[in-house]
Amino acid sequence: MIAPASQAGSSLQARNAPRPDMADPAPYPLVSRLVGLEATDDAVKALWDDHRESQFHAVWLRDNCACATCRHPATQERTFLLLDAEQPSLRAATILPGGHLEATFADGHTSSFDAGWLRAKAYDAWALAERDQPPVEWAADMEIPRFPFAEVMMGSEGLARWLKGLLETGIAIVTEAPAESGRLFEIVNRVQNPKETNFGTLFEVFSKPKPNSSAYTSLGLEPHADLVNWACPPDFQALFCIENSTGGGRSIFVNAMTVTEALRLQDPEAFTLLSEVPVEFRFQDETCDLRHLAPVVELDRQGRIRRLRFNNWLRNQTCAPVESMAAWYRAYAKLWSLIRDRRYQLRPRLAPGEMVIFDNVRVLHGREAYDANAGRRNLEGCYLDRDWVTSCLRLTDREAAAL
Amino acid sequence: MIAPASQAGSSLQARNAPRPDMADPAPYPLVSRLVGLEATDDAVKALWDDHRESQFHAVWLRDNCACATCRHPATQERTFLLLDAEQPSLRAATILPGGHLEATFADGHTSSFDAGWLRAKAYDAWALAERDQPPVEWAADMEIPRFPFAEVMMGSEGLARWLKGLLETGIAIVTEAPAESGRLFEIVNRVQNPKETNFGTLFEVFSKPKPNSSAYTSLGLEPHADLVNWACPPDFQALFCIENSTGGGRSIFVNAMTVTEALRLQDPEAFTLLSEVPVEFRFQDETCDLRHLAPVVELDRQGRIRRLRFNNWLRNQTCAPVESMAAWYRAYAKLWSLIRDRRYQLRPRLAPGEMVIFDNVRVLHGREAYDANAGRRNLEGCYLDRDWVTSCLRLTDREAAAL
Repeated sequence: MIAPASQAGSSLQARNAPRPDMADPAPYPLVSRLVGLEATDDAVKALWDDHRESQFHAVWLRDNCACATCRHPATQERTFLLLDAEQPSLRAATILPGGHLEATFADGHTSSFDAGWLRAKAYDAWALAERDQPPVEWAADMEIPRFPFAEVMMGSEGLARWLKGLLETGIAIVTEAPAESGRLFEIVNRVQNPKETNFGTLFEVFSKPKPNSSAYTSLGLEPHADLVNWACPPDFQALFCIENSTGGGRSIFVNAMTVTEALRLQDPEAFTLLSEVPVEFRFQDETCDLRHLAPVVELDRQGRIRRLRFNNWLRNQTCAPVESMAAWYRAYAKLWSLIRDRRYQLRPRLAPGEMVIFDNVRVLHGREAYDANAGRRNLEGCYLDRDWVTSCLRLTDREAAAL
Repeated sequence: MIAPASQAGSSLQARNAPRPDMADPAPYPLVSRLVGLEATDDAVKALWDDHRESQFHAVWLRDNCACATCRHPATQERTFLLLDAEQPSLRAATILPGGHLEATFADGHTSSFDAGWLRAKAYDAWALAERDQPPVEWAADMEIPRFPFAEVMMGSEGLARWLKGLLETGIAIVTEAPAESGRLFEIVNRVQNPKETNFGTLFEVFSKPKPNSSAYTSLGLEPHADLVNWACPPDFQALFCIENSTGGGRSIFVNAMTVTEALRLQDPEAFTLLSEVPVEFRFQDETCDLRHLAPVVELDRQGRIRRLRFNNWLRNQTCAPVESMAAWYRAYAKLWSLIRDRRYQLRPRLAPGEMVIFDNVRVLHGREAYDANAGRRNLEGCYLDRDWVTSCLRLTDREAAAL
């Protein structure tokens, strides 16, 4: 039922042949040449020059056709309705001049697929494994990556380096900015407007006479995640240091994944309890009463840690069944002890003009107590969501590819 | 080790005794009188006048002490550090005049607990079951609750009625507002500022010459959830109708929980595949490339449905393993057929001056195609998060209790 696959041309003309339009502005480097095809009615196997093989089902190819009929030419969104089409079946699969794939379906529709795009979208076991990178864990000996303000602010290359470092490590420091109010937003706006929460868009962290949060006192703060009383706490927090002349007030950072995985190893039952028993987290003041019920350790369906809701002052009542309550408290104390363990803690001292940004899902933050009368400690802070960080990084990829 | 429990006084004086300050501005009605206590070192059993019993562990009580030492008097946040305290043990538990609980611990600390507060926080099996209300499911015969604009805008009673209706049903219509631009924000701001997304804070839905989304065409839109390409799509969407004089353009609403539970019953294997295989969802235009990888059916650890990511034009590539891809597409088609089934669909026609607001997690929305030349269809829309809706409702409770 399938026409024989042609071989990819290798003449200069072929290499200059236009790439199929995938209605996708992201760059797709030609990692490896498409050198052969083996097709049946239901699927085509792509053979790559580096000896990898990728299987693409007829239904997947038909569903992902990028022609102007199947994707809206202006919005680039899919308008093809698979449910209204007959069961897709391949009539022919060929390699176009230029080395791209052309598939013709039993209903007569023909689709072209860019070889770089296809390779990036492959869903064979090796391809899925390559794309599934677990987050990096670290402990007290990790050096926080640092990025000069001037490079982050100029062009897309420095911006991309900073965001890649942040996404990989979960924490990064922008250095050598002028130590003045307003610079925080200048940096964060490289990505997007900060996220608004019950603390507003910009919050100033100093010892306030009428605090509505422990952050606005000079108390020491044990490592914690912010806003865990929200269904979706903000993904990143940025803190810009304007002044830090008090004796104490060093920052503390702990990789939440590292300590929680340590608990899983040391005490699987404690880990399970913390991942199953819901706890109410809550913030209340005159203008709001924001509560969320969730376990301290949030796992996905595969048992991977998604989030650690650890915050002693936003933690409200534990809703364990009566028979598990005492055990839950023992489990919580174990986790807490690990978080306090200095072997897991970074304790950098933020200098004026430095902005630390960290992943509020993966990294707990805290501070040592300080004496508000023995100097000044003044930070500006804001939140930002991961969706915008990864989107921004993709835009820098687009820009780099267009050069 | 435990002092005998005193009995609650019932004199006028006792009933006028002040209630313990729980550092909690929410109202806690005295549902039932505390009439007896049975205490050991580790826990106290509260006996209620309605014959219910509640067990409270010593560690839970100590952790939840609301005195000014254990909770910050200004922030009302917990400052007590359980990890630094000795293992809590009860020395005495008594019923105070007024019917509240006083607990004294082995370390000498004494805590008072309001009986209404205690009852609301009970964690016995019956109490947890009472608080665990599954979301309401409905089909085509459901009548969308309607709330007059004037009542929603005036005082906290109408506001509370509207929000309760919305939270219960997942959809509500505010009626009889002036059909003009600006009224959407006036209503939504009763709760909070709308959420900013890549479509801005306010979006206008009409057929645009250069659309960046299918919403901004006159195409029919199958029932879908918005912004499923975000890690946390907005919880609620509000659409205010300014004009709707085209022939078609009726709205469509489908309870996502109802159809997904129907799939679970009819085809458990299809349900499982859709809940396990990750799919990339994506929106791209000149200013962003926002992607999120997640299964179509998101389950929590207990297997309850948390969210349905159903949106044919934001759906990008399915990342099923090769051996499951064909089966995934069959499963997806089954779900899609259920969503198209008219027995599950509400098809109201929004009149000018009506604002529909619905739960973007629980309710899919769509519209019939319309002829942009045969009249005008002009909606204003915005998003809002659940945290703010439930917080606002709690503030109306506070207000009502203060009257």
